[in-house]
Amino acid sequence: MSDNVLVLGGDGFCGWPTSLRLSAAGYRVSIVDNLSRRRIDEELGCESLTPIRAIGERVAAWKRVTGRPIDFHPINIATDFQALLDLIEERRPRAIVHFAEQRAAPYSMKSAEKKRYTVENNVPGTHNVLCAIVESGLDIHLVHLGTMGVYGYGTAGIAVPEGYLNVKVDVGPNRQEEFEILYPAHPGSVYHTTKTLDALLFYFYNRNDNVRVTDLHQGIVWGTQTPETILDDDLVNRFDYDGDYGTVLNRFLMQAAVGHPLTIYGTGGQTRAFIHIRDTARCIQLAVENPPAIGERVEIFNQATETHTLLELAHKVATLTGADIRFYSNPRKEQAENTLRIRNRKFLELGLNPTTLDDGLLAEIVEIAERHKNRCDRSKIYPSSTWTREQSLDREGSRTPQGVEHSEDRRAASG
Amino acid sequence: MSDNVLVLGGDGFCGWPTSLRLSAAGYRVSIVDNLSRRRIDEELGCESLTPIRAIGERVAAWKRVTGRPIDFHPINIATDFQALLDLIEERRPRAIVHFAEQRAAPYSMKSAEKKRYTVENNVPGTHNVLCAIVESGLDIHLVHLGTMGVYGYGTAGIAVPEGYLNVKVDVGPNRQEEFEILYPAHPGSVYHTTKTLDALLFYFYNRNDNVRVTDLHQGIVWGTQTPETILDDDLVNRFDYDGDYGTVLNRFLMQAAVGHPLTIYGTGGQTRAFIHIRDTARCIQLAVENPPAIGERVEIFNQATETHTLLELAHKVATLTGADIRFYSNPRKEQAENTLRIRNRKFLELGLNPTTLDDGLLAEIVEIAERHKNRCDRSKIYPSSTWTREQSLDREGSRTPQGVEHSEDRRAASG
Repeated sequence: MSDNVLVLGGDGFCGWPTSLRLSAAGYRVSIVDNLSRRRIDEELGCESLTPIRAIGERVAAWKRVTGRPIDFHPINIATDFQALLDLIEERRPRAIVHFAEQRAAPYSMKSAEKKRYTVENNVPGTHNVLCAIVESGLDIHLVHLGTMGVYGYGTAGIAVPEGYLNVKVDVGPNRQEEFEILYPAHPGSVYHTTKTLDALLFYFYNRNDNVRVTDLHQGIVWGTQTPETILDDDLVNRFDYDGDYGTVLNRFLMQAAVGHPLTIYGTGGQTRAFIHIRDTARCIQLAVENPPAIGERVEIFNQATETHTLLELAHKVATLTGADIRFYSNPRKEQAENTLRIRNRKFLELGLNPTTLDDGLLAEIVEIAERHKNRCDRSKIYPSSTWTREQSLDREGSRTPQGVEHSEDRRAASG
Repeated sequence: MSDNVLVLGGDGFCGWPTSLRLSAAGYRVSIVDNLSRRRIDEELGCESLTPIRAIGERVAAWKRVTGRPIDFHPINIATDFQALLDLIEERRPRAIVHFAEQRAAPYSMKSAEKKRYTVENNVPGTHNVLCAIVESGLDIHLVHLGTMGVYGYGTAGIAVPEGYLNVKVDVGPNRQEEFEILYPAHPGSVYHTTKTLDALLFYFYNRNDNVRVTDLHQGIVWGTQTPETILDDDLVNRFDYDGDYGTVLNRFLMQAAVGHPLTIYGTGGQTRAFIHIRDTARCIQLAVENPPAIGERVEIFNQATETHTLLELAHKVATLTGADIRFYSNPRKEQAENTLRIRNRKFLELGLNPTTLDDGLLAEIVEIAERHKNRCDRSKIYPSSTWTREQSLDREGSRTPQGVEHSEDRRAASG
């Protein structure tokens, strides 16, 4: 079997460290990326806190440090089907790892234009990959980065299973029929919705064409570096701290570093699932190395290692840094508080040894947030998206530039 | 409330008679259509059996016959968001009826290009409509034409409910939790898959923005004319008989008229749900007049009036016409035989009085198939799509031009 792997979106926050990990593990990696995430940085006027290098410098640095080649292909998979198909037919990869989607929920809710961009980038992109695999006639395992968000807020009483749910339906007096379904989708943003659409595309192409697919329902990623990205400053990974692309824990770390209160939107009672970026890369490697058999249903893993409320997270960061915590009105339309229990047995059984928050948090503060804090633009700390028209109209009447800070909601708290 | 209604795809097989029906009922109808179906006719080298007029002549004839204006807007809703939004803001319609999707399963499976076209037309189109409704800030009821096909083959023991299913999940020893879910999607083609994606878009926009949506899960439409389209020859509705766009019963009627054996692909044991085109138009009117309340979940109706196996249908037509029946290998990937029981109480309770096959079949044969049979191109009778690469490769080795006729599968049968 070919050792070639394509990484779609291989220049991004998860894609770059995964590409290096797979390369280090002996795969011949080709990165496909249209660099849209870098263009969005320019559009939002915000840069990665870490000084990431241009893709050409990155792969050159990797070659210099390890001797391993990674080739780069600037293809837009949503619009240039033929180039994607040609590359697949030339490389004949054993696996395609697919990160190439617009991945920020707040960005996807910012305006009609961003909603449309998210749908029109993500859905045709994923469909093109499936369609190209079928068209190539090759047996290629598709590994897709999905999100825990497709499950919605979780269902009281049930630990969120890994993709599938056994249900019973009454079919007569005292008679139930049992069958397995895809866990019902409850997307909370246009971005999340596109991931639920992806799942149905996988379902169809798996059943109709026997495409092997692994869909990874990932939690919120925290951390920045992996054992590969720390090998050289030119390999440094992206760290987003802005209100659109920054994930919650990384935002807290940066806020603490620059002396800004930690920003909680809503009560902080929202429970989320988390994973360290180095475990993301490990999980992808495990997924690549453990494809479902031909004819098997879509494999789904929950790719998350722990769950916490946002307030618990803030307290952890505050304890280590002395930061204050402030509460703001929530731009998202979601439950104020939720419990979330998840099943994540499958990756643990394949050998994943998780990096816990308690292990990794301090290093992240010192190595990343403190080291690069002078690159922070404080004006990008607040989110600029709202989920509904009503919230958006409310914001217009607000006195703060970001429109989401309401003094009546602000109550100081310390960790 | 405004009496304006937009009909997206109002030039098509279902859209045209629905536009006339709504106009006759007193609504001020605007048709939005990019005329893609007419271009596909040219591409496939096949025309409607009935001589349909250009859209300008059609609406002029309607004005001449009834005095009622219908205006026409040549907008591609999948690509021209701003034009759609402008029209919505100008018209402020009470309802938007959405037929503007590529609607043939065989066409959607014909090639990578057609798969991609179907996804890239249908999904962004539906999303643009939802996004434009939200952007307009208006309370507009979206009535969407979906398909019974999203349910797949039905589930043994359960009559297919109208969109939602109550399920129970074991949450502990002797403890079950019950909740309602969208009926699990089982799409059988790329076309059907797009309708299941639409359903999740409706789900999200309904929950996030309170958009009122009615999704009509329609069976296979048969028949051609309605009380409005028969008012003048220039108003005649489309009748497709080709292997891609022709629905099964209309194909049988035309085959009988030209002395061709009725073509059954597979065993004929496939059960399908049916509805007459005049009931389609009535159902849409009922849906427009019975919107869900603001804040209510997406309303889903099963829009079908009877179920039959394909063999039962063929026997009905053979009995009336003396046609032979022939069996061919099935280009679709589907169960050879299935039972399908459906719930369709909601429209009956709203007053629908169905046109049954036994009532309408003979008229259809005499008025449409016999009258226009000289326009039939017999070379378009066989389907040219296959569902999988393997079937496609098989076909290349076949001796018949269409590749789907196998002498070992051919056994004469008469009704």
